[in-house]
Amino acid sequence: MKIGFIGLGVMGQPMAGHLIKAGYDLHLHRVKEKSRALVEMGGRAEESAKAVAEASDIIILMLPDTADVEAVLFGDASIAEGLSAGKTVIDMSSILPVATRDFAHRIAGMDCAYLDAPVSGGEAGAKAATLSIMVGAAQGDFDSMLPILEVMGGNITHVGEVGAGQTAKIANQIMVALTIGAVSEGLLFASKAGVNPAKVREAIMGGLASSKILEMHGQRMIDRTFEPGFRISLHQKDINNALTSARSLKLALPATALAQELFNTCSAQGHGDLDHSALIRALETMAAHEVGSE
Amino acid sequence: MKIGFIGLGVMGQPMAGHLIKAGYDLHLHRVKEKSRALVEMGGRAEESAKAVAEASDIIILMLPDTADVEAVLFGDASIAEGLSAGKTVIDMSSILPVATRDFAHRIAGMDCAYLDAPVSGGEAGAKAATLSIMVGAAQGDFDSMLPILEVMGGNITHVGEVGAGQTAKIANQIMVALTIGAVSEGLLFASKAGVNPAKVREAIMGGLASSKILEMHGQRMIDRTFEPGFRISLHQKDINNALTSARSLKLALPATALAQELFNTCSAQGHGDLDHSALIRALETMAAHEVGSE
Repeated sequence: MKIGFIGLGVMGQPMAGHLIKAGYDLHLHRVKEKSRALVEMGGRAEESAKAVAEASDIIILMLPDTADVEAVLFGDASIAEGLSAGKTVIDMSSILPVATRDFAHRIAGMDCAYLDAPVSGGEAGAKAATLSIMVGAAQGDFDSMLPILEVMGGNITHVGEVGAGQTAKIANQIMVALTIGAVSEGLLFASKAGVNPAKVREAIMGGLASSKILEMHGQRMIDRTFEPGFRISLHQKDINNALTSARSLKLALPATALAQELFNTCSAQGHGDLDHSALIRALETMAAHEVGSE
Repeated sequence: MKIGFIGLGVMGQPMAGHLIKAGYDLHLHRVKEKSRALVEMGGRAEESAKAVAEASDIIILMLPDTADVEAVLFGDASIAEGLSAGKTVIDMSSILPVATRDFAHRIAGMDCAYLDAPVSGGEAGAKAATLSIMVGAAQGDFDSMLPILEVMGGNITHVGEVGAGQTAKIANQIMVALTIGAVSEGLLFASKAGVNPAKVREAIMGGLASSKILEMHGQRMIDRTFEPGFRISLHQKDINNALTSARSLKLALPATALAQELFNTCSAQGHGDLDHSALIRALETMAAHEVGSE
């Protein structure tokens, strides 16, 4: 099986590597110094997205945002120019669900299949091939692509029709951002009241307030270790997609909008490259108080 | 050991019952039809809080809010009138930390000890004696009262000095309310976008968005089962204490303030007696869309 892979960033490199190791014939685009190892492993560097699509049965995308996916799919020397009937496009980027449905519709017009399959689990999950993959696709397309997705991920869920994967990913990013806010306001309250936030975290872990965020990021907030991890600037992109989608859906998401403003505050303070758990720093700035200084 | 217990509500009744079963000599105030069983088990009904304090070495309070605790401690025929040097007051109610410190100071003036020991775990935890207990106390007082607390609870943490237990409880209630908001906005986003929220919950459980709230209350939101549980009106009281404390601490808690407004919206719709997971109904009202109708 010939697979094309476009988007060899921090996530895409290890994902493509797993596919090569699994024995697939990989066609790559935009191979740079950092992704040169993939060619040494057996991947083939192609000159354009069009060439990748011509050489492959399945084309996987792992790009930063909606506009990048659109350019690679439909721009100059693009995938659309190289596609022929019966091929499959799998977009594993995290982009706007409404754009996903439009792209899928246009690709379907070429008698090709389209799946959206965004991931969570970060660089660590990509390296360990344990990514959660949220898939939007027709049942038959999901079934036939599952073996390939299983090479890259652990928890793979068929959420619904095309666009459902992107929708689930946004729901995930909303919950993560707002739970970071929840843990931030709770720990900051305790600290500003003069109580040790580490003791508070210990007292409430295991109860109704327990979350992966309290466990992992609560500890980061206490230890003041904000190296990414998942950068604030990337989470801002996902929340922008959430708010843009919500507006067109006629849906108010007041806490999500607030979380974005707190991320914006972090950016304003020069902290956009810190881990998203550094959202607490926006609240600390407002309070003129840092957790750990109680 | 003679123990006084004042506040025989939904939580207090089973807590007092465990102490009687553990062999303590219990003195009760305001025994009513519902708490009559405690007298049949061997508890003694006293005429006033003063009489309870006179008859007991340790007096436990489990009352609704700050004003109730103040009245029982310092009002007419109150505990303060019946106390003598060497006795101990344990307030297990959830009240304002700043009031707690004031009460403790006044009780200390009578050469008595004071511990704040609010709980989480609800009616189920009270019945099963598995409550989490967050304790603010001097080390010696904590050590000597621990065997009694262990009769009522499972996870007992000495958070810090007097007031630290109430502060931890408020931090807990902040995180719980905001995590309910996080799960609500995520699931509502998915549903309004036409995607099955149960599938979304399944896809993201186990990842960074996972929480006890997503597990339990996410399911309630999908199943539309909002019988309490923990009533919105009680959570509003705790969040009021959070915001009142934050104001005097000069601390902005924007997401907590927003959560209170959503609870207020629920009250306005006549839903103050529903479980706090019904916070999602405020957002649903704003969106003219209910989860499950996608």
